Amino acid sequence: MKRPLLLTYGMGIGPEITMKALRLRRNQRPLVLLGREEALDNWKDERPPRVETLDNAEPISRISFSDGDQAAEVAAIEFAAKACLSGRAAAMITGPINKKRLSERGFAFKGHTDFLGALCGAESVMAFTGGDLKVALVTTHIPLMSVGAALSQERIGYTVRTAAFHLKRDLGIQNPRIAVCGLNPHAGEEGLLGHEETETIHPCCDRLREEGYLVEGAVSAETAFLLAQKGLVDMVVAMYHDQGLAPLKAVDFGRSVNWTLGLPIIRTSVDHGTADSLVGKGVADPSSLLSAIKLADKIASRHSLQGFSQSGSLSVSQPEPT
Amino acid sequence: MKRPLLLTYGMGIGPEITMKALRLRRNQRPLVLLGREEALDNWKDERPPRVETLDNAEPISRISFSDGDQAAEVAAIEFAAKACLSGRAAAMITGPINKKRLSERGFAFKGHTDFLGALCGAESVMAFTGGDLKVALVTTHIPLMSVGAALSQERIGYTVRTAAFHLKRDLGIQNPRIAVCGLNPHAGEEGLLGHEETETIHPCCDRLREEGYLVEGAVSAETAFLLAQKGLVDMVVAMYHDQGLAPLKAVDFGRSVNWTLGLPIIRTSVDHGTADSLVGKGVADPSSLLSAIKLADKIASRHSLQGFSQSGSLSVSQPEPT
Repeated sequence: MKRPLLLTYGMGIGPEITMKALRLRRNQRPLVLLGREEALDNWKDERPPRVETLDNAEPISRISFSDGDQAAEVAAIEFAAKACLSGRAAAMITGPINKKRLSERGFAFKGHTDFLGALCGAESVMAFTGGDLKVALVTTHIPLMSVGAALSQERIGYTVRTAAFHLKRDLGIQNPRIAVCGLNPHAGEEGLLGHEETETIHPCCDRLREEGYLVEGAVSAETAFLLAQKGLVDMVVAMYHDQGLAPLKAVDFGRSVNWTLGLPIIRTSVDHGTADSLVGKGVADPSSLLSAIKLADKIASRHSLQGFSQSGSLSVSQPEPT
Repeated sequence: MKRPLLLTYGMGIGPEITMKALRLRRNQRPLVLLGREEALDNWKDERPPRVETLDNAEPISRISFSDGDQAAEVAAIEFAAKACLSGRAAAMITGPINKKRLSERGFAFKGHTDFLGALCGAESVMAFTGGDLKVALVTTHIPLMSVGAALSQERIGYTVRTAAFHLKRDLGIQNPRIAVCGLNPHAGEEGLLGHEETETIHPCCDRLREEGYLVEGAVSAETAFLLAQKGLVDMVVAMYHDQGLAPLKAVDFGRSVNWTLGLPIIRTSVDHGTADSLVGKGVADPSSLLSAIKLADKIASRHSLQGFSQSGSLSVSQPEPT
């Protein structure tokens, strides 16, 4: 039997979109739902059979968690990550969590991506796919005015190398081409509008090209997304959150997927929050979750075909040049 | 006879896209081309008749300029602005200029928008339309790390009020709805990811709502563009260049128009540069210029219908609440 996908359905609209996605999904690989038991109360008649361990997982089944040292939702994420690390599961998909509510219960991370990085002992890179566009972020959830100081050739280089590694390994793109954004308007216009490009981003791009990476940049964000839309690059590396996500979501809101790179496990996620104001109304849209399940499934199947015994055996912390 | 539109065709691919646009444009209002004589040398057989003053303008004609105290291209822009200010012309449309090359000849402005602000004695606001999206920028061509310090309730408020004024006067939107972006990821997430929202942007939005403006915000950039795409707001006000332009161009690159607000004249422009590497190849795309001419024409016609005797008579430097 194929190793299962694990879905931590999370909070807010998470359980609702999970049950909707199960109805819409074509069954390909066993799926196990993980999370707080009570969160599925509204779907009593539909919820899959409960199992105790992954070993007796059905095509669709669930494992429930209760609050203990950590909140049930956090326990579910930790269980899923460890099952992927050990190779017992193929990949994990996460629903939305409310960081603020979890932080009141002692959750000390900014979100899934950081938490999973710590669980896996790896430096994660937040990436997104939406339609034909793919974006990786050099910095994520920090104040915009802190971005300049957070940029370094090391971090930008790591982001590009990691992105190229995953594009090749997980999606089969043999020679990935990557557009690297500048930080400033018009990518600094040769130093007239800021110096981060001349001091950090351009030298880093030069070095990456010397290493054999196919890098365009630093280019303005508008140019980077134009190149991606024309199919001239496979991914955009953005320096900060809104630079990458506002264009991606303008093109494909609702169907984009959060894809964590740099981990030794496969992890995808919805691209939205818990949307608490929609809970109970039955109007939440499962599109992003469906896309996230589909991407995780696709990558897991590719790994199987390539003969990777388990995701956990692959080191991506030091990606090699393509 | 209708007052003419003035088109300063500028530099680089400017003359080429101008001649292409003339072939594609349906003739509605007299159009006068202004710029350096020699720039039209490649279009000898097609170029419109030369006239000396606006008073004897033909349906399509041209007035040429030579270098003097200022470069021919700058003289053309100044002539056009003054003709609009005096009411002899209906509107001006500008092609691309190369700021660096002009600055070597003593041009001291960052671009058209600043230059026109100085000529008109007004505080300009850079805005763009693309497809169904409209964006106005609180800050423009400054280093990203300077944006935080450049934000003030005065400047954000001026941008929103000016945007609302133009949407109503120029496009006939009676009660314009405007989404105001935050500066930080997720609009600061209640102060967790930066304080500009709580200190400046939220209070400014509250004040604008008290004044009667229909303002959503501060919202994240992703949310702002989603609202715009759903038709729930008429315009997005972005805090900085890439936040507004990267999503706009991702949705509609090639057809978007630069529209200057806050001036007592109507001015639109191409949204691209001189693209020097394309000059002479015949492949430059006139779409943005055509859209710019169309928008200027539309606003000018609306002003005529509303009985505005001349654009110059309208003060927009202190917009009133809607």
